[in-house]
Amino acid sequence: MTTNTALLSNKNAHINSVNGVNVDQINYVIESINADTAFGEFQFRARNCWVSGGLNRSQIKGFHAGGREDGTRSKPFTLDADEPQLVAGNDSAPNSMEYVLHALVSCLTGTLVYHAAVRNITVNSVSSKIEGDMDVRGLLGMADDVRKGFHHVRVIMQVESDAGVETLTELALFSPVYDIVSKSLPVELQIRKA
Amino acid sequence: MTTNTALLSNKNAHINSVNGVNVDQINYVIESINADTAFGEFQFRARNCWVSGGLNRSQIKGFHAGGREDGTRSKPFTLDADEPQLVAGNDSAPNSMEYVLHALVSCLTGTLVYHAAVRNITVNSVSSKIEGDMDVRGLLGMADDVRKGFHHVRVIMQVESDAGVETLTELALFSPVYDIVSKSLPVELQIRKA
Repeated sequence: MTTNTALLSNKNAHINSVNGVNVDQINYVIESINADTAFGEFQFRARNCWVSGGLNRSQIKGFHAGGREDGTRSKPFTLDADEPQLVAGNDSAPNSMEYVLHALVSCLTGTLVYHAAVRNITVNSVSSKIEGDMDVRGLLGMADDVRKGFHHVRVIMQVESDAGVETLTELALFSPVYDIVSKSLPVELQIRKA
Repeated sequence: MTTNTALLSNKNAHINSVNGVNVDQINYVIESINADTAFGEFQFRARNCWVSGGLNRSQIKGFHAGGREDGTRSKPFTLDADEPQLVAGNDSAPNSMEYVLHALVSCLTGTLVYHAAVRNITVNSVSSKIEGDMDVRGLLGMADDVRKGFHHVRVIMQVESDAGVETLTELALFSPVYDIVSKSLPVELQIRKA
């Protein structure tokens, strides 16, 4: 069986690293997509199982990338979600809204660092704060005119780099999760009886 | 200092539990919001620090709910994000896209279970699969007409319950993360030089 290991460039060569990112590997991905766009069609996945009350658990392992099923991950990541005590949970894990904030801020950070690396822009540090406001009347079905999710999200990123704020902002806005949260995306939901 | 513990209803009374959800506690939240809508204005937060390359780390602790700052969480949750090897990461944690999928499927699950509990609908099990498709040419800046995030997300939830598919779907669609992902939401991003 071929694994994605075969897709790694310059395994034994000198690594061209900027901001801790192997830029040759990213350029290899770009060249591979230029040769065949199917290389860039990625699919990520999760399985989730409800435990009880506010607690449920995801397992994350398989994904499709570089024109094939991944063969590099040997075991799944496990992520729990729970609810704070106020809303009848045991607070054993972050809740789903907090996972959205983590997804967004981690994606803005990674995207900024990677795009900077490819442009040979050094980034020394990134520290961020993110907040999401919601009016839970929407979620609870108490007011039809109140949206269910966050109505405002604010992110402040403190970046140490030679590049200016305008350039850094441009780089961060390549973020896929920023795209998902800020723009609409149809979600196909199918519920089946077990 | 008053803590959110004071907001918990019937701590010593018999718990009216459906699907493992303390329904009296949820009804207490609803009644409190009816008395004062500020009780339902929640704010969740995360702080994130870039480590190196594809690795960054969020700390999640404080939040505002029930008209006050939370005082029940004694320590933060820590969540890492990393990237698979193919895209120059060390794959030590899920990536941001996988966190989005976990946030969405965990939220659909929790919302379905909670709304069922309040309506006295028993749910015996929920197992779900979620997939998100993306064309990374958008993220990599290789094609302006390709979106950066997922272009399709599919969720299949297998639910064991006396309620029908139509009712279960209606309950799941109160999900705040479904709202965030499926609809647009302006994100205010501010980058500052450190």
